[in-house]
This record gives sequence, C-alpha cells and structure tokens, in this order.
Amino acid sequence: MEQATSEGTLNREQLHELAQQLRVDSVRAAAAANSGHPTSSMSAADLMAVLYAKYLRYDFSAPENPANDHVVFSKGHASPLLYALYKAVGAIDDEELLSFRKFGSRMEGHPTPELPWVDVATGSLGQGLPIAVGIALAGAKLERADFRVWTLCGDSELAEGSMWEAFEHAGYAGLSNLIAIVDVNRLGQRGPTMHEWDTSSLAARVAACGWDVQEIDGHDIEAIDAAYARALETDRPAAIFARTKKGAGVAAVEDKENAHGKPLGDAEEAIEELGGERSLSVSVKAPSEAPPYEIDRADVERPAYELGEKVATRGAYGDALAWLGSVDERVVALDGEVGNSTYAERFAAKHPDRFFEMYIAEQQMVAAAVGLQVRGWKPFASSFGAFLSRAYDFVRMAAISDADLKLCGSHVGVSIGEDGPSQMALEDIASLRAVLGSVVLYPCDPNQTVQLLDAMRQHRGISYLRTTRGATPTLYEPGESFEVGGSRTLRSSDDDAVTLIGAGITLHESLSAADQLAESGVVARVIDLYSVKPVDADTLLKAAAETRALVTVEDHWPEGGIGETVAGVLAGAGASTPLTRLAVSGRPGSGPPADLLAAAGIDSDSIVAAVEKLDLG
Amino acid sequence: MEQATSEGTLNREQLHELAQQLRVDSVRAAAAANSGHPTSSMSAADLMAVLYAKYLRYDFSAPENPANDHVVFSKGHASPLLYALYKAVGAIDDEELLSFRKFGSRMEGHPTPELPWVDVATGSLGQGLPIAVGIALAGAKLERADFRVWTLCGDSELAEGSMWEAFEHAGYAGLSNLIAIVDVNRLGQRGPTMHEWDTSSLAARVAACGWDVQEIDGHDIEAIDAAYARALETDRPAAIFARTKKGAGVAAVEDKENAHGKPLGDAEEAIEELGGERSLSVSVKAPSEAPPYEIDRADVERPAYELGEKVATRGAYGDALAWLGSVDERVVALDGEVGNSTYAERFAAKHPDRFFEMYIAEQQMVAAAVGLQVRGWKPFASSFGAFLSRAYDFVRMAAISDADLKLCGSHVGVSIGEDGPSQMALEDIASLRAVLGSVVLYPCDPNQTVQLLDAMRQHRGISYLRTTRGATPTLYEPGESFEVGGSRTLRSSDDDAVTLIGAGITLHESLSAADQLAESGVVARVIDLYSVKPVDADTLLKAAAETRALVTVEDHWPEGGIGETVAGVLAGAGASTPLTRLAVSGRPGSGPPADLLAAAGIDSDSIVAAVEKLDLG
Repeated sequence: MEQATSEGTLNREQLHELAQQLRVDSVRAAAAANSGHPTSSMSAADLMAVLYAKYLRYDFSAPENPANDHVVFSKGHASPLLYALYKAVGAIDDEELLSFRKFGSRMEGHPTPELPWVDVATGSLGQGLPIAVGIALAGAKLERADFRVWTLCGDSELAEGSMWEAFEHAGYAGLSNLIAIVDVNRLGQRGPTMHEWDTSSLAARVAACGWDVQEIDGHDIEAIDAAYARALETDRPAAIFARTKKGAGVAAVEDKENAHGKPLGDAEEAIEELGGERSLSVSVKAPSEAPPYEIDRADVERPAYELGEKVATRGAYGDALAWLGSVDERVVALDGEVGNSTYAERFAAKHPDRFFEMYIAEQQMVAAAVGLQVRGWKPFASSFGAFLSRAYDFVRMAAISDADLKLCGSHVGVSIGEDGPSQMALEDIASLRAVLGSVVLYPCDPNQTVQLLDAMRQHRGISYLRTTRGATPTLYEPGESFEVGGSRTLRSSDDDAVTLIGAGITLHESLSAADQLAESGVVARVIDLYSVKPVDADTLLKAAAETRALVTVEDHWPEGGIGETVAGVLAGAGASTPLTRLAVSGRPGSGPPADLLAAAGIDSDSIVAAVEKLDLG
Repeated sequence: MEQATSEGTLNREQLHELAQQLRVDSVRAAAAANSGHPTSSMSAADLMAVLYAKYLRYDFSAPENPANDHVVFSKGHASPLLYALYKAVGAIDDEELLSFRKFGSRMEGHPTPELPWVDVATGSLGQGLPIAVGIALAGAKLERADFRVWTLCGDSELAEGSMWEAFEHAGYAGLSNLIAIVDVNRLGQRGPTMHEWDTSSLAARVAACGWDVQEIDGHDIEAIDAAYARALETDRPAAIFARTKKGAGVAAVEDKENAHGKPLGDAEEAIEELGGERSLSVSVKAPSEAPPYEIDRADVERPAYELGEKVATRGAYGDALAWLGSVDERVVALDGEVGNSTYAERFAAKHPDRFFEMYIAEQQMVAAAVGLQVRGWKPFASSFGAFLSRAYDFVRMAAISDADLKLCGSHVGVSIGEDGPSQMALEDIASLRAVLGSVVLYPCDPNQTVQLLDAMRQHRGISYLRTTRGATPTLYEPGESFEVGGSRTLRSSDDDAVTLIGAGITLHESLSAADQLAESGVVARVIDLYSVKPVDADTLLKAAAETRALVTVEDHWPEGGIGETVAGVLAGAGASTPLTRLAVSGRPGSGPPADLLAAAGIDSDSIVAAVEKLDLG
C-alpha cells in the first residue's frame, strides 16, 4: 500500500491516478463477479475521485456521526465505483471488493444499507435524488446542520418524472446543501439517451427550477474541482452536468454501445490500458461537529372520543398525528397537497416546523420521507390511498432500504361516495401487504385510530394506516389497547353460528348485519380485523373451529385483501370451515356511500343475504 | 332554447356568454349534487368556450369517427365544466346534467368512458397529458392523421413528475398535434400552488422541452382565440399557460381559498351574479375525413422451440411479439429503455414503425399505451417487472378507463440472481391481480409464452405477462394450447400423495422436487398454474380432493401471489386439505440464481423438505 495522502493535498496527476485506480477496481470487481456495470462506473470515476479526495467530509469509522456528509448513488448500478471508493478510503479491503455480487457478500449488485456507509438502496433509477432531497430537507429545515448531500445521478434517469419532482422541490425549498452531479455519459442501457451530450435542455430546465447549474467536461479534473468549489459557494442547490464517456479509459468500450451492464471482454488488457493496479489510499476530510438544535414542540392532548360519537378515522388520524408530534419530537409529517382531506393539516397547525408540504408529487413525498428517516426522523406521509399507488416503486425500494416509513392513505374504498372510482383506493391493502416486512392497519373508529397510530410510531419499519372518509360511530373506549398483529372480537357467544370478519367501514356493516341476523335467530360472531398484516391467526382459527362458516367483508378488490389474508390462514391450517368473501368486484360509479356499498355487495343487507345462503345447520 | 349558432361565428360577447353559461351550469350541477368542483370549472370556462365554439372538430353524434379531435380533461375534477359543454353542444340535456354524481348516472364525479365522448378516465392528476401524448403519437406516427389532441391541465398537477415525462416526450417526438392548455388558477386543493401565477419557471421548462409556449390571460377571449390560432400554426407541441381565477365570476369564491371541491354556498345568488341561466347551444365544427393509411408489416414466422431446448421466457416474449406484429397490424410495442433485456427489441427490429422507445419513464410508457389503445391500437408495454411498479397508478386508472392494455414484466423474482433485490419483481402478481378485471399470466416455457402472448392479444382488457430472466427447458410442444383461466397438470396418477403447484421458474423446481420425492416413494402431482388470474379453481379443488396436501411455490412475496390465490379457492370451497405456501419471505441479496432460490426456500430441495414435514399418512 502506498502512503496515505493527507486530506486535500492531491494534485491533478494524483487525482487522475486515483480515478484510474477506481476504474481498474471497477473492472476487477466486475470481472470477478462476471457481471455488473463497470462502464457506468468508469464514466464517473474522475467525478468521484475529486469528491472523495477533496470535498467530502465523512468519518468512515463512524458512519453514524450526524456531522457526516451524505453520498447517494442515484445511479446505483455504478456500485463497482462505490465499492472501489470504499476500498480507496480504507473502509473495505481488496478481498471484500472482489466478493462483488457473490452470495452472502455485502457488495451487492446495487448498493443497500447492508453497508454502513449506504443510507438507502438504489438501483431503481430516479429515486436517489428525490431521497437526497429528503436528507437535505432534514439538514436545512430541521437540524440546521451543515452536512452536504452529494448525489451522483445518471443521465438516463433524467427521463424519470420523479427526478423533476426532486429538481422542482429542491429549488422551491432552496436546498443549498444539495449537490446533484449528473454523469452524462450519453449512453443508456440499450443505446443513446434522448439528449446524448447536449445538456442544454436539461440544464435550462434545472436552472428554471431555481438551481445553480454548471455544464462541464466530466473527465477534466480541474473543471470538476472548480465546479465543486462553486457548488459550495452558491446559496441554491447545485447541479453539475458533467459530460463523460461511458467506459472512459478503455478503448474497447469507451463511448461504445452494447457495453452496458457486463464485464469487460478482456479485463487484463483493460487494466493494463488503465496503467495497471494501484493501491492509493485516500484520507477523507473529517466532518466538523454537528451543531445542537432544538425542535419546537406544542403541547397537544391525546385525543379521546366518546362512545357513539361519529368521527371519521381520517379526522382521528389528523388529531392523533398532532398529538404524536408533542409526544415525540422526531415525528414529522408530509402531505401531498390534500392535508385538508387527510387532516394532516392538524399536525401542520400545531407543529409547522416539522410539517412538509410536498404538493401533488407523491413520489417526492415518499422519497422525502425516506430521506428524513435516514437522519433519524419518524416521517408520517399521507395522501388519498389511491394516490399513494403513484409512489409504489418508492415504497418497494424503501423496504429494501429497511426504512422506517409510516404511510396513511385516506378516502379508501367505494364508501367515499360521489367522487367516483378514480379517488377510491381499492388495491392499497393488496399492494402494501406485498411489501417486505410491512404492517397494514385499518381502524374502524377514532380511538382505535389514535392507538394504532401510536403503535406505528413505535414500530420500526414500513407501516400503512388505511382511513375512511365518512364519519362512523365510536365503538371503543379512549385508551383501549390495540396492538400490531391483534384483532378484537366484538360479538361472541357459545351459540355463534357464523363469524363475520370486517375492518374499517365494513366492521360497522358487519355489526349491523349481526343485529339483523339475530332477529332471525342466527347468532353471529363479529371480529374486527384491524391488523390485516400481521394478522391474528389464532383468533381466526378459533372462529373457524367454533362457528360453521366465515364471512369476510371488505371495501377493496377481492384480491390480496382481508378475504385472501383470512383464506391463507385457513388453508394453511387445513381448516374446513367454508369462507365466503364479500368484496368489491365490479367498477363502482359515483353516488351516496350507502348506495355504493350496497351495489358492491358489502353493506349489511348483502352480508345478511350471504349468510342466509349458507348451510349453517 | 335560443337559436343554435353556426360554427365559428360567435363573436367575443357571445363567447363570453357561452362561458358564463358554462359557469352557471357548473354551479347548478354541483348544487344539485351537493358536491363537486365548480370553482375549478369556472376558471377554465372561457378557455373551453373558445375551444368548443371555434376550434374543436368533433362529431358528437359519431364519437367513434376517427377524424374527430380528442379532448382530455387532465384536470378531471373539472367534470362539471365538461358536462356543461356536453349540454351546450346538445350531447346531453339539462336533466342529465343535473344528475351529476347521482347513483347510476353517467355524470360521474370525475369523467369516465361511460360517456362515449370521454376517451379515458381522469381524476388522478398528472395522467391526462401523458395519455394525450399516446393519442397524439398514434396520429403523428402511425395514422398520419390530422386530428388534434386538446388537453386541459391544472396547474397543481404540474407538480407530478409524470407531466414532465409527457412534456419531455412530446417535445422529443415533435407532436405538433398536441395542445396543452394549462388552467393556472393559482389555488390547489388546500392553498396556493408552488408558483401561483408566476408561470415563468414552468414556461421556461416546457419551452426547453421543445414546445411552443404562450403565457396569456385565461379570461381574455381574444387572447385565448389568438393563442389557439398560434397553437395550430406551430410545428411543435403547443402549451398555453393561461392565468385564471378559480371560481371566476362569483365574488364569494373568486380567487378565494377554502372554496375547492365543494358547491357554492349560495348557488342562486351566484347564478344571478353570473347573469342567470342561459340556453345557448353551440355547433362544433365537423371533422374532416380521416385519411387512409398503411402499416408496414414484416413477415415473421411463429416461433417454435424444441422440447428440452433452454430458452428464457423473456426471449420468447420478444420472439412472440415480433410474430404477433405480423399476425396483427394493430399490435404496437413500447419499451422503457430496457428492450435488450425484455427482448422487446426483437419487435423493434421487425416492425420499427410500430415500436415506441419511451426511455426510462415507465409512467409515460404505460400512459402512452393507454393513449394508443384509445385509437384502437393494441399496445404491449414492457419493462422489468419491478419497474412497472412505477406506473401502478396508471394501471389502476387504465382499468377504470376500461383500457385494452397488455403489460409484460421481465426479471421477476430472486431468480434474476446477481443484480439484487432492487431489480427483482416480487410484488407484481399481488399488485396486478388487484386491478379491476385484470389477467395475470406466468409462463414457464417458451412455447407456452408464445401461446399466452397471443391469448393476451386477443383478450380485451388489462393483462400482464410475467417473464423470467434465466433460460429454462422447453416443456411443451409448439402450438400446444393454453388458455386464459387454464392450468396444466404435468404429473398425475391415482397414487398422488401431494400436489405441487408452481408457475414460471418454480414449476421447474416443482418438477425436480417431484422427481426427488419419487425416489423416496412419495408420488407428487404437479400443476402448472400459468394463469394466476383468472385461476382454474376446478383443477385445484380436484387436487385438494385427490391428494392429501398441497404445496404452492412462488418466486414472489407470500402476500397476494400464487399461494393466496390457491388459498382463496380452497377456503371458498371449505376444502380441508392443508396448504403449505413457499414464497420469498426475507430480503434477498445478490448471488447466483440457484443460491438465491435456495436461500428463499423455493428451490426443489426446499420443496422436498416441506413435503417431508407433511403428514401424508
């Protein structure tokens, strides 16, 4: 190992040498794996060499240090470059570098937080920059810290609208701590990008968003150096469009098509062309100390609702969120310009400093939440449940990032009424259950909502709360306990013939159906399955054993919701109690909620009719 | 009813009168419904009055006329305005207008194709313009027709990245038949927009995308008229930023906050302020005839693979798509810049005129497909299955539009190997099953892929094909029949003790497991459940009756996939045969496919181990 250089002292030639080493190590890692993206790494090697050697402030021995800068590889497929940097700074050794993409190695195909220096998983393009906006928001708006967020972007990913949500929001918020370095290597996966090296259109748009924009030669060390220096000076977010060559440094692949995402044909020759292996090490600048900061905290009482009081669970969400803001100063809230519908505005009214209006940009909203939790904040992001589907890929990736992300979707199901199907979340349970490690909660009353939202606050991971537009009666006492993974049996006796299982709006319909059935002598057990994932299998199997039929009722499509959750439990246990699943199966229209619930076959009359068809003898 | 005016002859005062009528009727409709968005309608009334009276070419008695212009209300909540226009052109009567938002009425809260003049459902903001791009692509690139696509956008929805994907793509494609009219009324749902009336940043960005851009006063009839005239002249897509006042014309709500999405407080007074009810009728210009056009068609033979030949189903997708392009000239294909991975490039090679490279913009890709099917084309859009999650809201809305949309997601599951979890679709079955009326297919071999893709071509609706990255052996003869809703039992005997159910990659693991089990004397039935939705319940129930246990195996999360589909069938029938569900339950990493399948517990050894734990006595 050559002598470690001290910070900031590398001259131009040394920086070039470091960049060549990063290229060589990228080529070697991909060769060892026989897969990966060396050419996408080689284009950005000069950019990253200068960043790590001269500008980054980061203590690799203490990645948890809050004063550290952040580096986000939005072009996550350039992972060989990132890992080559980790080797150059001494965070990993050569052996680990060469474990790239091998089973069990932390050197995964795309970076994940399995590595302590990686904040979030990337690899789905267009996500790194919006997440970086969230990290930068934490620094600029909450912590008043001076860390910087350096983001390496690809040019292909500028086709993703989410990138433009990020440019827009960062400009709007004036995030001078955010630097986007765009590696304009002209070539996407299958051929040239839309703009190739003509960065004028992109630069004009980013400038119009309020950024400081530079266009440079991304292989010119001095130009890179000057660009970073200017980026630190500006009081706006800084974008650097760096024109580069994919595969730079190796003639066989440099600026060539059909060289994406594969190892070089002749790695040995390429390494020789790059000047051979090197073992330069880099001292990265130490961060200064993170400044102390205070969070404004208004006192808000825990909301409590009287039995029988009619309150929409979305309203209780707003009340509970405002309360949680007083309980826990790490709680922050994000809104997708519907805060007066989700009632996130009630949090904003009490804790304006911790409220982020993200406008109608659900991808940026969820991405910002992911960025905020990188800094230890507990973000609650809400919109109509239907519109959270816009950010599904971001939630998927947040799970791979092991993010602590709390989502709330309001206006679920046909019960919203007149607004019609475009506004109705009818797939949210299915899609959000199918997220690694997620929790899906669906309260039926305001006191339960308060309790479950607090459970979400305390739960680390991805959780989702489903709220209802219309007011429903309060069924539970304030402070009654509801746990993730629990359920509540509201009606139960030794004479139960059938079990009705609902949650949210359909729990009320189930109770009403039970009343009607009782009049005709059929005794029904009623279960409030408020925790759809994880689910209380014991209670369901007990009901299967003790009653002669089960009926699930849900304001959701039949697929992947409450009915299939229950079916999975029953089939897993080999329970022979037949299950009838009532769910929304046709296209709903507009109309009063009661008419739509009836038309969908999920109101109390439909439940009664379904039970009457059963053989309960 | 006042005398119908003839086309194009309305003077400025008459156009103002028409606009006032549209406002009055918007107010009346919302008052009758006691809900809706009258103020968002009133801001755009002048813009639409001039469009319908002077510029639109549309035969309301023949909405299927291919020469008609298209009008897309991207701000779908302005439905009262749209319905007021339908009344003004004589397409509906006043009684129907006043059925707005009533149960059973076509006058839904947000427009849907239940109305013959509506091409696509809107109401999820940011979707109308990207879909309009698809309609315009059909006119400009395929039909060489001269219809125009007029799109009314809101200013709030410009925060959605999907709008910027649309501006980018339309500029890139030079769609001079596309006109975006942005109703800049300054106020979103909960307060001011980011830019309010300062349209300079937005205009600069749209101009940088290659559009002709104008900024006007959206209540100035002459300015509107001049702007439309110029929009027809330019050889680029045209954007008109029209500064307006929300609730224009009624002092109580004009440019006021807290007046979004609700009827006016005093409708009678408002109508009086607007000059009272009117009954103007408008003659819309007739369209010219649609020109004939020819589609290039290359002859491609139906692909056929030999038994045992190892071929990836993604490769067969490419081959089959190229073949279908010859079979059916309405078939078009769209790629999200991964055509050399999905193998959509094989279609491009044969039918370049019908291939649309959409770059890494999955929302725009799916939206363009929806737009293309508006014109009767049969779009197949493909990307990595994981990245289709980016467009989930667009698929959700496509179902409400009753769209004919064919999707293919490649690189599904952990079996992709080294690229790692960011690239693995593990939630696609769950999310795409939970779409109204969808079909979900998952082939295990290339000949089956060909057959199923042809079935998708013939099926009208939303369908999804899931393909595998790695090569798997050909199991079926070329031309063997596979139907939507079918299954194939590959191993079956009277001695079957257990049934193994797989699809795609896990079908092969199931066959291998059956071989291993046979050696230890356990006879296993094997079912290829290639049609996950709709599912072949009869075959599953027969297996439940004839064998003592069922095991599903899927390269997907446990939620909402094959296992729960089967569980739903079993529980619905009250079958007591226990079901074991093998699925991916932990976070996968990078590594060889075989290692990842084993780690996830879905390889043949895991299946054998699961069967060995069962009580098959």
